[in-house]
Amino acid sequence: MKLGFIGLGRMGSRMATNLVRAGHDLTVFNRSPGRSASLVILGAREATRLADACSSSAVISMLADDEAANDIVLAPSGIVDHLPTGAIHVSMSTLSVALSRQLALAHEKAGQRYVAAPVFGRPDMAAAAKLFILAAGNSAAIDECEPLFRALGQKTTIGTEPWAANLVKLSGNFLLASVIEALGEAVALIGKSGIDPKLYVEFLTSTLFPVPAYKTYGALIAAGKFEPAAFAAPLGYKDIRLALAAAESLRVPMPLASLLHDRFLRLLAHGGDHLDWAAIGGLASQDAYVLGSRRVAS
Amino acid sequence: MKLGFIGLGRMGSRMATNLVRAGHDLTVFNRSPGRSASLVILGAREATRLADACSSSAVISMLADDEAANDIVLAPSGIVDHLPTGAIHVSMSTLSVALSRQLALAHEKAGQRYVAAPVFGRPDMAAAAKLFILAAGNSAAIDECEPLFRALGQKTTIGTEPWAANLVKLSGNFLLASVIEALGEAVALIGKSGIDPKLYVEFLTSTLFPVPAYKTYGALIAAGKFEPAAFAAPLGYKDIRLALAAAESLRVPMPLASLLHDRFLRLLAHGGDHLDWAAIGGLASQDAYVLGSRRVAS
Amino acid sequence: MKLGFIGLGRMGSRMATNLVRAGHDLTVFNRSPGRSASLVILGAREATRLADACSSSAVISMLADDEAANDIVLAPSGIVDHLPTGAIHVSMSTLSVALSRQLALAHEKAGQRYVAAPVFGRPDMAAAAKLFILAAGNSAAIDECEPLFRALGQKTTIGTEPWAANLVKLSGNFLLASVIEALGEAVALIGKSGIDPKLYVEFLTSTLFPVPAYKTYGALIAAGKFEPAAFAAPLGYKDIRLALAAAESLRVPMPLASLLHDRFLRLLAHGGDHLDWAAIGGLASQDAYVLGSRRVAS
Amino acid sequence: MKLGFIGLGRMGSRMATNLVRAGHDLTVFNRSPGRSASLVILGAREATRLADACSSSAVISMLADDEAANDIVLAPSGIVDHLPTGAIHVSMSTLSVALSRQLALAHEKAGQRYVAAPVFGRPDMAAAAKLFILAAGNSAAIDECEPLFRALGQKTTIGTEPWAANLVKLSGNFLLASVIEALGEAVALIGKSGIDPKLYVEFLTSTLFPVPAYKTYGALIAAGKFEPAAFAAPLGYKDIRLALAAAESLRVPMPLASLLHDRFLRLLAHGGDHLDWAAIGGLASQDAYVLGSRRVAS
Repeated sequence: MKLGFIGLGRMGSRMATNLVRAGHDLTVFNRSPGRSASLVILGAREATRLADACSSSAVISMLADDEAANDIVLAPSGIVDHLPTGAIHVSMSTLSVALSRQLALAHEKAGQRYVAAPVFGRPDMAAAAKLFILAAGNSAAIDECEPLFRALGQKTTIGTEPWAANLVKLSGNFLLASVIEALGEAVALIGKSGIDPKLYVEFLTSTLFPVPAYKTYGALIAAGKFEPAAFAAPLGYKDIRLALAAAESLRVPMPLASLLHDRFLRLLAHGGDHLDWAAIGGLASQDAYVLGSRRVAS
Repeated sequence: MKLGFIGLGRMGSRMATNLVRAGHDLTVFNRSPGRSASLVILGAREATRLADACSSSAVISMLADDEAANDIVLAPSGIVDHLPTGAIHVSMSTLSVALSRQLALAHEKAGQRYVAAPVFGRPDMAAAAKLFILAAGNSAAIDECEPLFRALGQKTTIGTEPWAANLVKLSGNFLLASVIEALGEAVALIGKSGIDPKLYVEFLTSTLFPVPAYKTYGALIAAGKFEPAAFAAPLGYKDIRLALAAAESLRVPMPLASLLHDRFLRLLAHGGDHLDWAAIGGLASQDAYVLGSRRVAS
Repeated sequence: MKLGFIGLGRMGSRMATNLVRAGHDLTVFNRSPGRSASLVILGAREATRLADACSSSAVISMLADDEAANDIVLAPSGIVDHLPTGAIHVSMSTLSVALSRQLALAHEKAGQRYVAAPVFGRPDMAAAAKLFILAAGNSAAIDECEPLFRALGQKTTIGTEPWAANLVKLSGNFLLASVIEALGEAVALIGKSGIDPKLYVEFLTSTLFPVPAYKTYGALIAAGKFEPAAFAAPLGYKDIRLALAAAESLRVPMPLASLLHDRFLRLLAHGGDHLDWAAIGGLASQDAYVLGSRRVAS
Repeated sequence: MKLGFIGLGRMGSRMATNLVRAGHDLTVFNRSPGRSASLVILGAREATRLADACSSSAVISMLADDEAANDIVLAPSGIVDHLPTGAIHVSMSTLSVALSRQLALAHEKAGQRYVAAPVFGRPDMAAAAKLFILAAGNSAAIDECEPLFRALGQKTTIGTEPWAANLVKLSGNFLLASVIEALGEAVALIGKSGIDPKLYVEFLTSTLFPVPAYKTYGALIAAGKFEPAAFAAPLGYKDIRLALAAAESLRVPMPLASLLHDRFLRLLAHGGDHLDWAAIGGLASQDAYVLGSRRVAS
């Protein structure tokens, strides 16, 4: 399939690589230059202007946050301005429900088709083409994009309202952050009692919770090792805020989400911007003053 | 192996059945009579007095709480009084760390061997011999009990201090209750937005969280169906209290555990004693006033 | 003093009345008409257009929220557009820190002087000219407004940065909402034990807490009576959100503010918009299922 | 009045002094010796054995906690064993509801009269005879003790069930700790914004909250000064635990009390045992990383 791909960050570059390897004809674009070299070697074309990545019948965007998506999609000379009528924009970024609604409206007005398809998975899963993709929007458009999704991971369709995929994505990140907090408190308790936290996490993840989320975050928390960041704390904080913003507009109180919100604020107040979001799982050990637990700011 | 088995409740009766089926020679005892019939048919002997279940070289107890364990094990004419020197008591109940320490001391004084071996798994997993058993204590004793554990599920050894197994068990129930709370809040958010909670839970449990805990509790919460109780709310509340008690004595603040504590109190204040502990996962929907969410007390 | 007064809601109408009674020459304006009659009888002039209330050397605004302030002050044909150079705008509304900074900038650009002077006190205190006024901004301007403040209550100056007054006001409402929550939980405990909550509140407010905040909210909570609203729940919710927004931008985690936030969301989800904000103090009794506690939605 | 006085700690010694000064005939006793010298100079008699302080028609006890009260009152050779029939025991300690019920029962069986009369006020208020006393129990007994209460402060009667006074006392300490937490969060917000916290607290306590609780704790928190302890953190923690224990047995969820509980645990985990309980009001500033905020453990 011939398509544009916009956003070559930690996730986007790995996703674009898999698309090229699967035989798709990609024109890639990134706002800050110098990210395309390895993709070009594999056969992708580099667009120097956004418009050049928007001339096919489909474009994928994978951007950091609402602000970037606003600039790249909605602002003058953005995707909406350049995409041909009838073409599909697959937005795989983690966006707010409110912005997703706006994008849907803008594309509809412009006669384009919009699919929200945010993903679950850290960069290693993106590289391994094992992302969990959550698609919502026009069903014909989703069907046409099937070969793309297949090259990236496993897709589930969640309906025809694009914002629904964004809400489920945000709720999923809330669930993951809840796992981090719960493990953080459990490891603080276990660690201070004198039991080896690593053995503890191994037990948990070979019995009750034999899944990557618990394995990955359990290991990081047991080791108190939160660098380098695979998913940085400010991004995790952003997603919890977006989940809370959606909950506010629906009038849904979420006390555990509020607890996570406060954990992130504390981490960031202490200079944790460069840490993995799993670092909120280290705060319980700090509060318990478990020996060997890292203090973020010292 | 010839042994006694004390406590034929929802879990104990299924466990004893599997032991008999595996060829072990069981003498069973339950404080309130009338629970042994089906076991006797399978070949178990029924003890009418506690002492009669304590004459072999091993006895397993599976009791509801600290109070029962205190009565059955420590009180005059309890297991400690009747068990032969050198014999093994395998305590598979979910007990407090403090009581487990007391039991260890009492058995040591009496020249007996004590193994704490609490289990993870609801009655259906007990019946299927798929319990996760967490053993701690004298290693020779644990080795001797190997055939028993094999008949019940999968065993992990967590060290030589019996209380450690109890603490890990309590921390595990804390993690499970955290899953319930997180799912409860997510389902409230998703449900109020208009997305089908059952589809949502299916998505989660076929991607990020393909494990029984999320499947079981996700399905109950999405359906708002908390009866009959496989694990009743008062037992869940008890375990969170015991986890918090251990955390207090170690001086470990656990805000998520405190949140769970308050959820259980609220559920019980509204007459939720007969519900499954998953019912705390329905409170977020009540708070959000999601249509169709059950009100416990009406 | 000759001045304009904009915003004749529950608070503004009482404040304007006191200003007229103190001999000031008021031109009053309210967006929805029909609120000026009693003021005109007392000697005020009614402006039919906003501009007519902005022709003197000072104008006071008392508006419901950021949105209203934005429309009335910043939007085209707002106060900034109409106020003479050098004139003073005294903004007594409870606004966000962010909007207060914007107003300061806009007035500075327009060569006008801006004083933020939010107030503490419910309508009865406004009527009694017993408001606590918190002024910040240009000190000469504050001095010139002294006679106005004197007619309304007791003034404290908090510095020359207008936003500081708004932040202190928001933090004060956070403290008041904390009083409500604490009293709500205490009354739930006391009430369920069988002690008379009214006697309890009388004891508290004649010993430890002999101040209006505890007396007012204690009486409402003990009686479970939250109508009519002197300060409506949506306004309280708005202020907690603005306090949390300020805390977010400063990276200050406030777990008690988060708890209050969730209490308000729950109250509003159950149709509590018409209740006094003290109604969040009834939720603890609902959770405890104290007999006689009002259920918001039934 | 002739009476015994047991417990000469920070509070008890000041209270006993006021009783002697008011002309009462005191026989004082303290478990660890060397606390009576100044009282003897004023005219009190020193008892070397507990029994000697229990021979009059009344005895007051002012003890640190349930454990001490259990030892001094209930244990063999305690007050219950020594007090004459019909005599009155006025227990002014802050005790659990459960222990207060036990004391009432024990005194009733022994034909003695029991009055619970816990107090509000720090040592300086005890010295100034300005304690708020909360009496509950046999009304004739309370009447007879009127002269004693008058010498100590201001008394309110809360009914005939002694435990009720203890519950109200615990709920009062919960309200005070809530004030500390709320002020702590507000000061973190204000302080990080650059506003002077001392000016802020002065504003609050001269307007909304002109009462000792806000003045005392506000000043300590604004100064970040938590030594020496007038009321030590472990005592505050104990009272929150007792309030939560009462709430548990009544099935009353108190999320703010849970938050306070976790704050205390964290303070104590970091070696805060010697600090005033106001030190939990410093944790919000630590979380926000406000410059100049004290770190408990460094």
